[in-house]
Amino acid sequence: MFPEIKGLNEECGLFAIWGHPEAAKLTYYGLHSLQHRGQEGAGIVTIDGEELYVHKNTGLLTEAFQAGDLERLSGRQALGHVRYATAGRGGYDNVQPLHFKSEDGSIAMAHNGNLVNYQPLKSELERSGSIFQTTTDTEILAHLMKRGHSDDLRKQFKEALPQLTGAYSFAVMTEDELAVALDPHGLRPLSLGRLGDAFVVASETCAFDLIGADYVRDVEPGEMIIFNERGMFSERFMEAKERALCSMEYVYLARPDSNLEQINVHTARKQLGKQLAIEADVDADVVTGVPDSSISAAIGFSEQAKLPYELGLIKNRYVGRTFIQPSQALREQGVKMKLSAVRGVVEGKRVVMVDDSIVRGTTSQRIVRLLKDAGAAEVHVRISAPPIIRPCFYGIDTSTTDELIAANHSTEEMREMMGADSLRFLSVDGLKTGIGRDAKQPNCGQCLGCFTGEYPTAIPNEHRDLVVAGKG
Amino acid sequence: MFPEIKGLNEECGLFAIWGHPEAAKLTYYGLHSLQHRGQEGAGIVTIDGEELYVHKNTGLLTEAFQAGDLERLSGRQALGHVRYATAGRGGYDNVQPLHFKSEDGSIAMAHNGNLVNYQPLKSELERSGSIFQTTTDTEILAHLMKRGHSDDLRKQFKEALPQLTGAYSFAVMTEDELAVALDPHGLRPLSLGRLGDAFVVASETCAFDLIGADYVRDVEPGEMIIFNERGMFSERFMEAKERALCSMEYVYLARPDSNLEQINVHTARKQLGKQLAIEADVDADVVTGVPDSSISAAIGFSEQAKLPYELGLIKNRYVGRTFIQPSQALREQGVKMKLSAVRGVVEGKRVVMVDDSIVRGTTSQRIVRLLKDAGAAEVHVRISAPPIIRPCFYGIDTSTTDELIAANHSTEEMREMMGADSLRFLSVDGLKTGIGRDAKQPNCGQCLGCFTGEYPTAIPNEHRDLVVAGKG
Amino acid sequence: MFPEIKGLNEECGLFAIWGHPEAAKLTYYGLHSLQHRGQEGAGIVTIDGEELYVHKNTGLLTEAFQAGDLERLSGRQALGHVRYATAGRGGYDNVQPLHFKSEDGSIAMAHNGNLVNYQPLKSELERSGSIFQTTTDTEILAHLMKRGHSDDLRKQFKEALPQLTGAYSFAVMTEDELAVALDPHGLRPLSLGRLGDAFVVASETCAFDLIGADYVRDVEPGEMIIFNERGMFSERFMEAKERALCSMEYVYLARPDSNLEQINVHTARKQLGKQLAIEADVDADVVTGVPDSSISAAIGFSEQAKLPYELGLIKNRYVGRTFIQPSQALREQGVKMKLSAVRGVVEGKRVVMVDDSIVRGTTSQRIVRLLKDAGAAEVHVRISAPPIIRPCFYGIDTSTTDELIAANHSTEEMREMMGADSLRFLSVDGLKTGIGRDAKQPNCGQCLGCFTGEYPTAIPNEHRDLVVAGKG
Amino acid sequence: MFPEIKGLNEECGLFAIWGHPEAAKLTYYGLHSLQHRGQEGAGIVTIDGEELYVHKNTGLLTEAFQAGDLERLSGRQALGHVRYATAGRGGYDNVQPLHFKSEDGSIAMAHNGNLVNYQPLKSELERSGSIFQTTTDTEILAHLMKRGHSDDLRKQFKEALPQLTGAYSFAVMTEDELAVALDPHGLRPLSLGRLGDAFVVASETCAFDLIGADYVRDVEPGEMIIFNERGMFSERFMEAKERALCSMEYVYLARPDSNLEQINVHTARKQLGKQLAIEADVDADVVTGVPDSSISAAIGFSEQAKLPYELGLIKNRYVGRTFIQPSQALREQGVKMKLSAVRGVVEGKRVVMVDDSIVRGTTSQRIVRLLKDAGAAEVHVRISAPPIIRPCFYGIDTSTTDELIAANHSTEEMREMMGADSLRFLSVDGLKTGIGRDAKQPNCGQCLGCFTGEYPTAIPNEHRDLVVAGKG
Repeated sequence: MFPEIKGLNEECGLFAIWGHPEAAKLTYYGLHSLQHRGQEGAGIVTIDGEELYVHKNTGLLTEAFQAGDLERLSGRQALGHVRYATAGRGGYDNVQPLHFKSEDGSIAMAHNGNLVNYQPLKSELERSGSIFQTTTDTEILAHLMKRGHSDDLRKQFKEALPQLTGAYSFAVMTEDELAVALDPHGLRPLSLGRLGDAFVVASETCAFDLIGADYVRDVEPGEMIIFNERGMFSERFMEAKERALCSMEYVYLARPDSNLEQINVHTARKQLGKQLAIEADVDADVVTGVPDSSISAAIGFSEQAKLPYELGLIKNRYVGRTFIQPSQALREQGVKMKLSAVRGVVEGKRVVMVDDSIVRGTTSQRIVRLLKDAGAAEVHVRISAPPIIRPCFYGIDTSTTDELIAANHSTEEMREMMGADSLRFLSVDGLKTGIGRDAKQPNCGQCLGCFTGEYPTAIPNEHRDLVVAGKG
Repeated sequence: MFPEIKGLNEECGLFAIWGHPEAAKLTYYGLHSLQHRGQEGAGIVTIDGEELYVHKNTGLLTEAFQAGDLERLSGRQALGHVRYATAGRGGYDNVQPLHFKSEDGSIAMAHNGNLVNYQPLKSELERSGSIFQTTTDTEILAHLMKRGHSDDLRKQFKEALPQLTGAYSFAVMTEDELAVALDPHGLRPLSLGRLGDAFVVASETCAFDLIGADYVRDVEPGEMIIFNERGMFSERFMEAKERALCSMEYVYLARPDSNLEQINVHTARKQLGKQLAIEADVDADVVTGVPDSSISAAIGFSEQAKLPYELGLIKNRYVGRTFIQPSQALREQGVKMKLSAVRGVVEGKRVVMVDDSIVRGTTSQRIVRLLKDAGAAEVHVRISAPPIIRPCFYGIDTSTTDELIAANHSTEEMREMMGADSLRFLSVDGLKTGIGRDAKQPNCGQCLGCFTGEYPTAIPNEHRDLVVAGKG
Repeated sequence: MFPEIKGLNEECGLFAIWGHPEAAKLTYYGLHSLQHRGQEGAGIVTIDGEELYVHKNTGLLTEAFQAGDLERLSGRQALGHVRYATAGRGGYDNVQPLHFKSEDGSIAMAHNGNLVNYQPLKSELERSGSIFQTTTDTEILAHLMKRGHSDDLRKQFKEALPQLTGAYSFAVMTEDELAVALDPHGLRPLSLGRLGDAFVVASETCAFDLIGADYVRDVEPGEMIIFNERGMFSERFMEAKERALCSMEYVYLARPDSNLEQINVHTARKQLGKQLAIEADVDADVVTGVPDSSISAAIGFSEQAKLPYELGLIKNRYVGRTFIQPSQALREQGVKMKLSAVRGVVEGKRVVMVDDSIVRGTTSQRIVRLLKDAGAAEVHVRISAPPIIRPCFYGIDTSTTDELIAANHSTEEMREMMGADSLRFLSVDGLKTGIGRDAKQPNCGQCLGCFTGEYPTAIPNEHRDLVVAGKG
Repeated sequence: MFPEIKGLNEECGLFAIWGHPEAAKLTYYGLHSLQHRGQEGAGIVTIDGEELYVHKNTGLLTEAFQAGDLERLSGRQALGHVRYATAGRGGYDNVQPLHFKSEDGSIAMAHNGNLVNYQPLKSELERSGSIFQTTTDTEILAHLMKRGHSDDLRKQFKEALPQLTGAYSFAVMTEDELAVALDPHGLRPLSLGRLGDAFVVASETCAFDLIGADYVRDVEPGEMIIFNERGMFSERFMEAKERALCSMEYVYLARPDSNLEQINVHTARKQLGKQLAIEADVDADVVTGVPDSSISAAIGFSEQAKLPYELGLIKNRYVGRTFIQPSQALREQGVKMKLSAVRGVVEGKRVVMVDDSIVRGTTSQRIVRLLKDAGAAEVHVRISAPPIIRPCFYGIDTSTTDELIAANHSTEEMREMMGADSLRFLSVDGLKTGIGRDAKQPNCGQCLGCFTGEYPTAIPNEHRDLVVAGKG
């Protein structure tokens, strides 16, 4: 139904630091706290004023970096990235930061977001002789900057960025400067902090906490900030448009200890859980959440509904990527991997199972069955977000499915398919107001595209078909 | 104060299966669910009736086994082990199962527990010509069996096991038979299950859930069970003594989805948390638990005390063993690794921090400081177990510290050292009754040695000194 | 004296096959036989008519390819490369084949040789907006082809290649075609073969022997050959110029079992050794060669001089790249690594030591000392090539030294520096005629640039300084 | 015909050093020069007077030791071993040195050779309660020493060694002493050297050359030498018997730069080649040797026969153990791996192909075919040793074949099977006298068991059958 959209950078994580003697190490720790945003590749580029040093590799940070790798990354400025990629779009070539050397000097760049006009821009550049070596949309910016009329990073940014449509937070580093920029809707999070005299920038504030940095403020939509030896300089490269921070960052993507525009993510999730209990209470014995991302919402539901919160589902902590998969035969005999239902908790009980979202519905179906197999008398599924009925064009990996279940089925049909005793979603209004953001802004300043089909930016015609494809 | 005790096998995990065509794979999954009991080594031995196949290595299961390793382990019977080892006592040689070949045939053996008379037995065997190749106490049993007067596994067990003092659950496999045995006090858990026609044995019942096996019963103290082609045969090798299941299995060691003697571990912990709230309530704003093992107790405390339960502390899920450690300088600047306090949750709040135990006190001190640094107004530490004032001789790794803080300091002294606003422990009576085990048995059938100094078995003189060393 | 020249591809190896069901495997074996031409990286690209598959990595072929990697390279056409790189110019980014995807399709390219006008071409392309991602001169061709006025591989080649100056053998593959080309002087070897219905191309004929292919002919200077589903098409992209095959291919680079323009390399070397004995005989007891490349010349010398040939020097076969290096202190105590003198053979003897060339002179000095330490009474060094007095601009790694000893010292000075009893080089005339190539061509069709300073192509001004820098 | 014989340690290599500050590193280099004697495992044990440090692993030395491993092996005494093992008898458990810790202290041991009474000794020890953890015969000595009546290494050796029958060179190290011993026939080589104040012992003298040590003398048959802080002490543990150094050490096993009992191995091989030319000259055009071990004999043959010596066969230097094997189909198409015939050298020529021995005959057959496929007009096979008609019981890996071709076929039958134009072996007398050892000793002091069936030691009945099995 919804074919794969090329050029996604999805839910990546960015970290940069300017002016610290241990720049590479701090970037490593910063990326570590952002690991949940991307587990397919990691890289750090440092600059010591003359030379650019690079280390990157596929895999988790702990796989991509071995003893000694950090030592070789000298310099007081660093830029790091963790990359999310679905199968087939991985590979070393796409691991960021990208880095280019020319006679004019070196440049490194990293990106979190997705450009909706990637294909037309790429076609145009190729027609005029550019060669692309990656399939990430990050490379577009490099070509646009190179094709521009200036050698000055600030001017290059101001010339190139307005040509882009979509969600983006960019960080670019040369021998002399670090520049970051956020798209005019502020679709992706990007925060600014300080660590002593050094400046730090990160996709989430949890990175500041880990390294002991202080949060200063969020980067503003349409803002670019340049750091160089004279200090920090902020400027608009475009006027800010209607604020539209991705709702999914609150719902499941960000870490619970991060603050997004000064709202704590755990607290936001708990509020969504409470709101859900208000909208869709049920007579039951216990509440349980699907670990890890739905725990906060489940606690909120339990508190509001005055039902005991229990560990009814356990996630296996040691499931690595090398885990040898059970055969289909063993699976059918009941060999379970990532998640187990706790029989001692759910047996004979009416269980409220709180989850954060439903994409294809197969995971929910599996969990309901786990709970019933473990003896649950009833399973009431409560989702702390509205049904997803439209693809995301801004980097959330819902669009790689060819079937969003909620785009094609009613709630009752979904309930039946997953074998639940009841199924309820949070309302769109509940999502808008529940988080507690600025009620005066349209949509409370949130992007609701995947719930409503109303996207903050233009969507190119090639993608338009995807939008009308769903029946919901 | 308490020097290291040699020969510990500590909190290992055992799994065995008899009579399944995919024995090695199921053992792999079974060990996977027991990974929390030992992360320093893993091994599986299979037998196809003629030949014994072995694969074992240091590290996590996913590190020790690579693609193809399981395929080489053919046969319908398998025995697996995950090993816990503190630094310096690791190394390939000690990874279990141990396996020996002689003209009489092959034997493989694995062990969870600790023999308190390891040293005198070893000295005696060496004096009469035995050569030991490992420093695990598991090897003792092999020599005792070899020195016995029989070639029959059943008779060898009955002759050798009564010579042992301590905590042990053994599994031994030959070309023809699998035998398991539990010490006469039942200090370590060991459960029996069925998967179709196959028999399974595991240290915890969560292994049964993962592979879809049914729980049958727990192995009884002093019982040995032999599986062979004719079926399963149970027998006492010694009379059962006063039941004394390790309390720490409930408090922090076992997985929350396991049942120990039919009591769910999560539920037991939640009960301990409730009991703690009854004994040591406090006026506060939020309750938080130290992840992962104290979550259940914190939920129980919150429910009983009617205080909101929050994610005030976050554990970093991606801290692998290859994580590059921050320098002391960076640490002092505030770089945190495993655990972060959630500022958005605790800032300005009076926080109840529930933890499961205090050994040296340094971890608690660090967490209190994390919370205060993140802005907590007050931190009230509540421990869901009594103070540990004596070493464990049965395999719990408390004895490697040379200072059990509670053995040397009053509660008030400890509170001050950790910088908490209040500190309270669960009472010994609360622990005994809170779990909900058989109230008619002495100590409710639990070992309380580390809390009281009253051990269920004799302790050799060499260890006796350790017991009186503490001042508490 | 002679600074490092950027952009070298040096002594790499190329292999390609068109139209065989096991294309990737045969390319792997073919590259295996070319491993001596490059040990820093290896890669294979295959095409199945639609998709391009790539696997490449740093290191030896056996390190770069693991089990399963070949299986993923499906298709009946394949292009492979082994890369030579001196320290600092290695790294994954430069491993070939390079591959690029655009809307027009995919292209993969590999190169053996060196472009002397790399820098001016690159500067010009960057000025007009191209971004370079590697520091290999191979990428130049991709940009020139992209910037051309055609989508047709044949026309792109004809337009781009004449812009290049230097030594090159290129292989380029698209979804539909494979094209190879050799520079108009034929500085690098490139041969054409057949394996059943399939076409094969390789840098050396030893690759044909390994896979059982038949040699057809050598690719001609200025010739390009295109393979597609209709067959093989040959065409001149430039008129052939004065033939100038690199003499060093015969002297030390190629494998002894290869034929270069139908002259066997071992036989050529043996002839050079005989010629050397004619020119520079000496009264001695034994002849020994420096393994491996000087063995053939030493045998020739021995035969001509009627002196016994002995294994006076042994090369350690197991010195891998992971070999732990001895400290300076141990080196001074006499710990030897790659080469040992055989005391039992040289003690008390007058030894003729035949080597193939002298670059910096340090290796020769070390070997003379090895032989004297092992008791040799006299050491007479005989070099089966003339003195190297000029840098190579075509890819032979002599130019990375900042001191060619023969460019700055007389033969007598060199003899004294290396501690030999006598030192003689082959004459330039001896090299020209000794190999036995076409005497009617200038220089017998060989490049003698490094011996005479007369280069077959123009040398850009920037490099001109290097040429006059030497005093010789 | 000849089934596998258990317990072989075959052609291993030993190195030990006593009293050098860089003991581990020097042992590493020493083992490196002995790598040809064993490539399946490597290990080093050091002792610093108190503690024993061990590192060992399967594979080549460069695989078994990684950066940092040597640094952890502190101490001034070291013992190292490289292990040869045929498939199925490998595995970590059997890698040497073996090491055992007991209350009495630590012991490490390494062995080169084979005990013919391994099985009866092992059975007896098992019956009295010993447990064996390896299948190497090295472990026998440990048990015999432990079962003895002394704690003194010297007395243990004198008590245990005379119980052994076979070929052995042992090195044993405790906290205080290093002891080495050679069997009373001196079947395996073992040499003594000095490096400054330190003592060194090695299986071959090439190890001394590599580390710059001076050769002192060979260890004598029946001699044991003990090194401790007071110096070096030599003693007979048994009277020397008829000298019988393994002929195969000269023929192919030892390195050409080693001296065995002061005869250089390359020179001995060249002499055998000359003797072969005297006994079996032939009218031909070129002589070529099978690399690497037959090169010296081929040179000798060429010199004596006055025929040119050529590189007619090339060994691929980069064939690692990870080399991906060609399918049978590709093999039949002519894909060659380890060895290539040089068409440019052999085409149209009558070739004398010198090899060192024939075991199963399959390799010779393959090489003859390689040469003929490359166009050789005639191939005359000349073997620089007599036909092997009996198994070796002392550690040479001829006995794992179930068919020694020469035990079952006449020379003419063999010639026909391998497709050669003629086939001749060196005579037994030629082998005896050709090497140039002491003509006054029986068999010139060499073991000729595999050529004649006359073994220097008793052979147990179980093995006797093997001896009479052959028809030759």
